[in-house]
Amino acid sequence: MDDMITEQVKQQLIDIVGAKNYDDSKAGRLVYSYDATPNFQSLPDAVIAPRNTKEVSEIVKICNKERIPIVPRGSGTNLCAGTCPTEGGIVMLFKHMNRIIEIDEENLTVTVQPGVITLDLIHAVEAKGLFYPPDPSSMKISTIGGNINENSGGLRGLKYGVTRDYVMGLEVVLANGDVIRTGGKLAKDVAGYDLTRLFVGSEGTLGIITEATLKLIPMPETKQTMLALYEDLEAAARSVSAIIANKIIPTTLEFLDQPTLQVVESFVNIGLPTDVKAVLLIEQDGPKEVVERDMKAMARICREQHAISVQVAQTEEEANNLRTARRSALSALARLKPTTILEDATVPRSQIANMVKAINDIAKTYNVNICTFGHAGDGNLHPTCPTDVRDKDELHRVEQAFEDIFAKAIELGGTITGEHGVGVMKAPYLEWKLGKEGIAAMKAIKQALDPNNIMNPGKVFAKSTRKRVVITR
Amino acid sequence: MDDMITEQVKQQLIDIVGAKNYDDSKAGRLVYSYDATPNFQSLPDAVIAPRNTKEVSEIVKICNKERIPIVPRGSGTNLCAGTCPTEGGIVMLFKHMNRIIEIDEENLTVTVQPGVITLDLIHAVEAKGLFYPPDPSSMKISTIGGNINENSGGLRGLKYGVTRDYVMGLEVVLANGDVIRTGGKLAKDVAGYDLTRLFVGSEGTLGIITEATLKLIPMPETKQTMLALYEDLEAAARSVSAIIANKIIPTTLEFLDQPTLQVVESFVNIGLPTDVKAVLLIEQDGPKEVVERDMKAMARICREQHAISVQVAQTEEEANNLRTARRSALSALARLKPTTILEDATVPRSQIANMVKAINDIAKTYNVNICTFGHAGDGNLHPTCPTDVRDKDELHRVEQAFEDIFAKAIELGGTITGEHGVGVMKAPYLEWKLGKEGIAAMKAIKQALDPNNIMNPGKVFAKSTRKRVVITR
Repeated sequence: MDDMITEQVKQQLIDIVGAKNYDDSKAGRLVYSYDATPNFQSLPDAVIAPRNTKEVSEIVKICNKERIPIVPRGSGTNLCAGTCPTEGGIVMLFKHMNRIIEIDEENLTVTVQPGVITLDLIHAVEAKGLFYPPDPSSMKISTIGGNINENSGGLRGLKYGVTRDYVMGLEVVLANGDVIRTGGKLAKDVAGYDLTRLFVGSEGTLGIITEATLKLIPMPETKQTMLALYEDLEAAARSVSAIIANKIIPTTLEFLDQPTLQVVESFVNIGLPTDVKAVLLIEQDGPKEVVERDMKAMARICREQHAISVQVAQTEEEANNLRTARRSALSALARLKPTTILEDATVPRSQIANMVKAINDIAKTYNVNICTFGHAGDGNLHPTCPTDVRDKDELHRVEQAFEDIFAKAIELGGTITGEHGVGVMKAPYLEWKLGKEGIAAMKAIKQALDPNNIMNPGKVFAKSTRKRVVITR
Repeated sequence: MDDMITEQVKQQLIDIVGAKNYDDSKAGRLVYSYDATPNFQSLPDAVIAPRNTKEVSEIVKICNKERIPIVPRGSGTNLCAGTCPTEGGIVMLFKHMNRIIEIDEENLTVTVQPGVITLDLIHAVEAKGLFYPPDPSSMKISTIGGNINENSGGLRGLKYGVTRDYVMGLEVVLANGDVIRTGGKLAKDVAGYDLTRLFVGSEGTLGIITEATLKLIPMPETKQTMLALYEDLEAAARSVSAIIANKIIPTTLEFLDQPTLQVVESFVNIGLPTDVKAVLLIEQDGPKEVVERDMKAMARICREQHAISVQVAQTEEEANNLRTARRSALSALARLKPTTILEDATVPRSQIANMVKAINDIAKTYNVNICTFGHAGDGNLHPTCPTDVRDKDELHRVEQAFEDIFAKAIELGGTITGEHGVGVMKAPYLEWKLGKEGIAAMKAIKQALDPNNIMNPGKVFAKSTRKRVVITR
């Protein structure tokens, strides 16, 4: 492994980016040997920070010739080990490519480099009365490049969709060093295959994104936030389906169970109810009249589904506290035990109640502690297990429990990952969702665009697959 | 060519679909030798109508082994020669696969076979208070399978997006006969590459779509329609940019110039103004209060941009007449001359005024008659030329004019096709938009998924490319 980058190649790379932007010290490599996903640490051979697209292209050409893996990395907040350099090679950072290039108010677009922090982008466009909806919980530190590679979701996905729905055009460096541009500032474009959306969510395995043009929408006029409390987990889940079936699409429809609530409250101390079995955090935005009408209707629906209390936030501060509390769920849960495994099972939203019930049954079966929260309106739950990787016995049971959870999600017409990506972590389970034929089709595309497998190798496609009879629909 | 399908292969195909569903008579082949695009007629070797996915898969396996092209065809309303069997082979019809399988009111989805007529689908979901927005002008006869293969747009695209934005999952038969399922009834799914959207708009060149799950949204409560009249073409175009820049996104924002207006009025006879230089047809839908507010604001903006009159439709009948008039533009123009060439140049919406001006200048330069209408809010214009293919001299000038129009669209940051697809017709120009490197990437994907080039060959990728210096941005 230490010989992957020869002295000669190292010198070529330094000639491109400058000595300051190439680091193969032990300390430098250690920093980028892991991401937010537990248990996949692996040392890269070097860390490199190109300053522009031309440098990225030159680096890629060398790596393609020398068969050196490249792992593009934003802030490493992903939860699928998508940026762990498990095959060694080079971790590529975008700290120099972090400019907002243009906010175009006539076409409602923003053009950015990949290293821009998500929240910085959101603030910059909001200052102009425009709105970029995708808001992953990690948005304070995540980068747009990472969001695009993982097709990140967020709390506003129910109404506004995910990152993919806002990417209009990309500049991408392919594995052969070619620089291509897809899409543009165009509401419609059918000139050839939809490469834009093929690259979104491809986890850096098909090319390196060096620029993106994103769609903006007008800022909603107002927003209201409410909390519905439940003595019964499944009643909360049923409320979610009932709201949608009543043809109301709120901005946010989040679920937190009691164990999550207790942990979050002890972290944020804002007076969250901890004596109830579950809460729904509901938000609607838009014109004032519509928001008020929808909030009333949703409150009624929640009560019909046996919510014991429905409280509308009275101030923006109170609303913001609730949102921040929800966003801090992972951080709060991570304080409980040395290891936190956060999962991402997703089902059709009509199956939310069944899935919540199944998760709790599975946790009991394997005697593990699972806290569940997530984007209930999207059918996207995050069952989370505070554990300890050093406790081999418990870890084994945790893994079995999550296997059962994935299998149940698939059985209910769902998927193994709604927004976190496949990475290394979910790769063994991908076949449960796609079948052998689906994987073969994706591998053919990967092979066509990256024949030497230098683009984030080891991600998406597993070396071995978990055996389980695939549930056919 | 007559030997492409041997007697033995013919018998194998008949064994699959039954004699009634295999037609190689001269008359039968002639019917499917052309589509809505002028000048690309070519006889297929046979026409086949499978009854289910299994039959499609069996047919594909034989064709893959025997290297027989397959051209999947809905109603043939496309305008890029996307369903002309230019390489011979089999035209595949979906007249037996035309069921709406399920409308799921809990998950707001509809699952359909490819042969369903677009308007039938729209009516079926509207009966349940749900809304399927994509509404190509051909929706009365076009099929959903065709819409997906071409990623069709429509009049409501500005606010609601295009077909791609509503496809959640697909069943696809690949070139090797494998049947895969992508996506599902899932608001979020990042399990591997986004094959769903790769197949949308791939014009049948990557696989055959045999089932689709589409997203529905709640039916908007109300809708209003208005017509703004202009003495000045560019003032109309400027109004479009001004509306968007004022952060209003109407459902529909259509442009018709005077020549189009005159032709349409003589076709529909509803009292359209024919003495003005251009009109905008503007619609907004949603909650009553919002629609009223937006309509007032848009009327004000149009007047500020020198509209000479702004009239709101007083009845739904009047509104419907206006929409129907706009949808009939192609039919109306087609009555003028034996040949109608309708184009699809698309630019960022801020460039609409420049593009309209350029089209008129180009028409003058080449002394051809071009009527322009289209989805101005999307930057998607349809310059249309009534001509006669037998008049070689004029046809040559028409082709030169359209070449200049495509080049201008690219120069303004646009694309050679916004919603009609590449097919055979635009293939020579694709490189202007994508560059050699972009085409190479797409060809690699095509080659990976269809190594024997049996899936609608001759489409998207040209045998020869029009030479013109690519305008770099």
